[in-house]
Amino acid sequence: MTGFVSFVSSGPGDPELLTVKAVKRLETADAILFDDLSSGPILDHANPEADLIGVGKRAGRPSPKQNHVSRLLVDYAQTGARVVRLKSGDAGIFGRLEEEITALREAGIEFEIIPGVTAASAAAAAANIPLTRRMTARRLQYITGHSVTGALPEQLNMAALADPEATTVVYMGKRTFAELAEKLLAHGLSPETPTLLASGVSTPEQTLRRETLGALPELLRKLETTAPVLILYGPLAEDS
Amino acid sequence: MTGFVSFVSSGPGDPELLTVKAVKRLETADAILFDDLSSGPILDHANPEADLIGVGKRAGRPSPKQNHVSRLLVDYAQTGARVVRLKSGDAGIFGRLEEEITALREAGIEFEIIPGVTAASAAAAAANIPLTRRMTARRLQYITGHSVTGALPEQLNMAALADPEATTVVYMGKRTFAELAEKLLAHGLSPETPTLLASGVSTPEQTLRRETLGALPELLRKLETTAPVLILYGPLAEDS
Repeated sequence: MTGFVSFVSSGPGDPELLTVKAVKRLETADAILFDDLSSGPILDHANPEADLIGVGKRAGRPSPKQNHVSRLLVDYAQTGARVVRLKSGDAGIFGRLEEEITALREAGIEFEIIPGVTAASAAAAAANIPLTRRMTARRLQYITGHSVTGALPEQLNMAALADPEATTVVYMGKRTFAELAEKLLAHGLSPETPTLLASGVSTPEQTLRRETLGALPELLRKLETTAPVLILYGPLAEDS
Repeated sequence: MTGFVSFVSSGPGDPELLTVKAVKRLETADAILFDDLSSGPILDHANPEADLIGVGKRAGRPSPKQNHVSRLLVDYAQTGARVVRLKSGDAGIFGRLEEEITALREAGIEFEIIPGVTAASAAAAAANIPLTRRMTARRLQYITGHSVTGALPEQLNMAALADPEATTVVYMGKRTFAELAEKLLAHGLSPETPTLLASGVSTPEQTLRRETLGALPELLRKLETTAPVLILYGPLAEDS
C-alpha cells in the first residue's frame, strides 16, 4: 500500500496565484505538509478532511531538519495517502526539492511536481515591469543570497552577476546583499544600476521600493520585516 | 471612457497550469487578444460573450507587427472594455511585454500584470527534476536563442553561459542551439554536460529527451516539431 506524493508549488503567497492544478491537488489531498511561507489563506483551498502538517521554519526557533521532513513525507505516503507537499513559489527553484525526491525514490514512492509562479515573476508583475527586455536585459538569472550556512554563497560567478545586460533576482538576500553589492561595484557594475526591493510579494504585507544599487544596502539595513525579501537589479524597466 | 488591460500569463499550455486569477480574468473579459501559443484549450476558460482576437505568429505566414498588436490593444481598451492580453508562459519573460505597456502608458490606459508559470518551471517539473540544486546548480539563468533577426543573439556573456555550476534554460533555441553549443564547448563546458530537450511542454504533444551537450545538436537537427522547444543544460539532476 503505497501512496502518492504531489509536490505542489504554492506560488508567492496570494491564494489566487496558485494554479488550477495545485488547487485540485489540495482539494483531494489526504495529508498536506506545508512550510510557513506556503500556508495562511492558501490552505483555505485544502480538503477539510486532510491532515495539515506544518514543517516550516519559524523566525526565532529551530526548524525541523530537512531529513525529518523527508521521513514524514515517506511515512504519510506509506499509509496509502494522497500526500501534498506544498512548497512556496515554484517548487523547483531554491525549494530544496531534491532531498525529498531522493527519499521518495529510495522508498519506491511515486511522485509528481506541479510547477508554479516563482516570486521573481510575481515581484516584477506587482511592479508593472517585465523581467526581460528585448534590447537591454536579454539574460535573466536567479541566485540565492543564503547558502547552507546562512552566509553569502562562496564561488560566485562575478562575470555573470556583474553583467549590466542581465536582470538578476536575489532570493533570500536580505542579510547578505550588502556584501554582494560591494562585490558587484568592485566588479564594475554601476552604483546607479536600478534595483527593486520587494517583500511579502502578493500578500497584504507587500512592499515595493525602487532604489539604486549604491543606496540599497542602507535601505536594507533599515528594513524591518519578517516577510520574504527579493532583490532585483539590472536594467529594470521604469515604472510609471 | 477608458477600459482596463490585464496582461494575463497563460502558462506553458496545459489549461490547468493557469492561475486562479488568470482564469477569473478570462471569465470576465470583454475582449481577449491571444497569441497562438496561448490559445487552444486555454480559451475554454474564456467568457463566452468575449471577443476573441488572434494576434499570434503562425508558421509559414507573416505575423502581425508588434505595433499592430499594441494599436489593437489600445483600440479595444478605449471602447471601455475589460481587455485581456493573453501571453504564453510568464508574460514578463521573453514576452515582448514592454512595447505593449509603453503603448498603454502613452494612451493613458491602466493595466495590471498577472504572473504565471514559465516554460522552464514546467519542463523541469515534467521531467521530475528541480531547476536549482543546493550544491551544484546554485544559479539559474534564462536566455533566448532567438534575437530580433532570428539569429543567435550577439554579445553573449560566455563566462555566464559556460558556467558548469549554473542551470541554463534556452527559450526558442531550436534553430540556433547548435551554434551556441559550439561556443559553449569552445569556452570549456564539457561535452558530457547533461541537457534536456523539451517540446510542447505540458501539452498532449509533450516530448522530453535527455542527451549530452555534445550530442544534442544532432538530435535537434532530426527533431520535427512545430511546438515550442526549450533546452536545459547544466548539472541537471538525474531522473529515475
